[in-house]
Amino acid sequence: MPEDFEKAPANATPSHADVLAAAARIAPHAHVTPVMRSRALDAIAGCELHFKCENLQRVGAFKFRGACNAIFSLSDAEVARGIVTQSSGNHGAAVALAARLRGTTATVVAPRSTPKVKLAAIAGYGARIVPCEHRQASRDEVTAQVLAETGGVLVHPFNDPRVIAGQGTAALELLASAPGLDALVTPVSGGGLLSGTCLAAHGIDPAIELFGAEPEGARDAHDSLHSGTRITGRVADTVCDGLRSELGTLTYPILREHLREILLVDDAAVVAALRLIWERMKLVVEPSAAIALAVVLAHRERFAGRRVGLVLSGGNIDLDGLPALFATGRSE
Amino acid sequence: MPEDFEKAPANATPSHADVLAAAARIAPHAHVTPVMRSRALDAIAGCELHFKCENLQRVGAFKFRGACNAIFSLSDAEVARGIVTQSSGNHGAAVALAARLRGTTATVVAPRSTPKVKLAAIAGYGARIVPCEHRQASRDEVTAQVLAETGGVLVHPFNDPRVIAGQGTAALELLASAPGLDALVTPVSGGGLLSGTCLAAHGIDPAIELFGAEPEGARDAHDSLHSGTRITGRVADTVCDGLRSELGTLTYPILREHLREILLVDDAAVVAALRLIWERMKLVVEPSAAIALAVVLAHRERFAGRRVGLVLSGGNIDLDGLPALFATGRSE
Repeated sequence: MPEDFEKAPANATPSHADVLAAAARIAPHAHVTPVMRSRALDAIAGCELHFKCENLQRVGAFKFRGACNAIFSLSDAEVARGIVTQSSGNHGAAVALAARLRGTTATVVAPRSTPKVKLAAIAGYGARIVPCEHRQASRDEVTAQVLAETGGVLVHPFNDPRVIAGQGTAALELLASAPGLDALVTPVSGGGLLSGTCLAAHGIDPAIELFGAEPEGARDAHDSLHSGTRITGRVADTVCDGLRSELGTLTYPILREHLREILLVDDAAVVAALRLIWERMKLVVEPSAAIALAVVLAHRERFAGRRVGLVLSGGNIDLDGLPALFATGRSE
Repeated sequence: MPEDFEKAPANATPSHADVLAAAARIAPHAHVTPVMRSRALDAIAGCELHFKCENLQRVGAFKFRGACNAIFSLSDAEVARGIVTQSSGNHGAAVALAARLRGTTATVVAPRSTPKVKLAAIAGYGARIVPCEHRQASRDEVTAQVLAETGGVLVHPFNDPRVIAGQGTAALELLASAPGLDALVTPVSGGGLLSGTCLAAHGIDPAIELFGAEPEGARDAHDSLHSGTRITGRVADTVCDGLRSELGTLTYPILREHLREILLVDDAAVVAALRLIWERMKLVVEPSAAIALAVVLAHRERFAGRRVGLVLSGGNIDLDGLPALFATGRSE
């Protein structure tokens, strides 16, 4: 990703106060999602689990929080230029809906390989879709073209302080609903949700242990934090289609400062956790969300007997792909 | 079903007051389940939908309400004799859990054809399972044997006033959460949930229109009400595995008195509605629950512009059976 693309939005590190401001800003538009419990899963995990149900958020994912905060932070003059983003998934739908609510247009640069259901969701919220190739260079090139042609405002999926602050509002609500949690577990991809969670949680209680959940097949964030260098350029291989991005220049330092650890699991563990959530909690979650439970079950010594919050980040999944997904779980 | 089996429990018709008493009795044990909305489904249906999420009830189905009310209505002396029922599904699990909570034992007579996951759920709550053959005569014979041997107390799946009153508590909660609904739609099988809904709703507002939702392949309740005779002895053929029973002697007259209509849909419509609920609401429901939305979509002229409550009756489904279920939806 070229530097000018990454730095296009304001690049100041957001604070806990920014998360509080985001909560007030998005309140008229976003759902306060429920926090759910499950006796059965508590028994299986050997700890007390509090699930923040962002699969029940608008557009079916936490992404609406960040997109909404970013777009409603803009001036009327900026908004009038239209919103531009690149996304092959939930962020594109989130930007499309938030732009519509703000009364402006959105253009989403999306790889031709994007699943039809996700393109349909983006188009369903009224956004224009501009196709690109799958490789990052093509995405950035086409995004830069669109920005130049339209004069629009970029809302990056995660490397944007307003997006990070918006994503943090999920953890704010979780801790308001379940005060005194010992630990939070959140999926990590580009790090928008996880860094927002860091700012939200440690502003309330610096003693809360914060964990990222990452697939073995996309372990760049884990390896970045262990090596002390932000790793880029790897090819991700995981069923967690929402967790294939790399950390950004804004999110990486926040994670370095706040995070206890990034915990890894393989895809079979993710699928097993997904099945547990569907079967025991009756909630449709996507693999990228189920990974939070997967790491708690795979690293149970870290969580035994403790009160743990998990962010179920989204529920957008192609039901026709389930047989293949479940086969992944069995073959490994 | 032999008369002595049907009449084993008290056979007085329950009242609205019995539903209120049931609500108080089960309050320490049952969940007050959420009522959920969906902008997307309102737009698709052309009316205002309020979904009572009994898939989030304990044991994953409304059945816990009736079983709990019946078992907590018993005297200590009766309870000490143990509970007996026959079930191939959610009622068996509900009786098993309610019996355990009351500190007694349960015996569930279940056909050998019962899916392993459902047997595992029943056994998981500590009940003894006694196998029988699939045909009703075998179920009744084995149940009678178990009753004779154990001296236990029968809790019938639906033809029991305490069970009916317990099931009615779901509609009480729905109407407390969404006052002034114009209509309620509830699945119908043996009629326990639907007749309890009748007593609950018309005790609050006699003008509420009450509808049953029934599969074309198990339309005995529809045909019974149209012919004026309770039909028995048919073989059901539907993907709604919870809707294959026939009306009971207690439930049939309640439906005759209160019901506006029983609406029919085919299995393809049920599967399409199930997919909508999974995809748009992110809720795992079983086919027998999705049928409520299916009838609203299939009979939309009856509901256009109105405020409609639907009971999502349960969420217990074998995920490995999904490809076959979805194929049903496509082939018809």
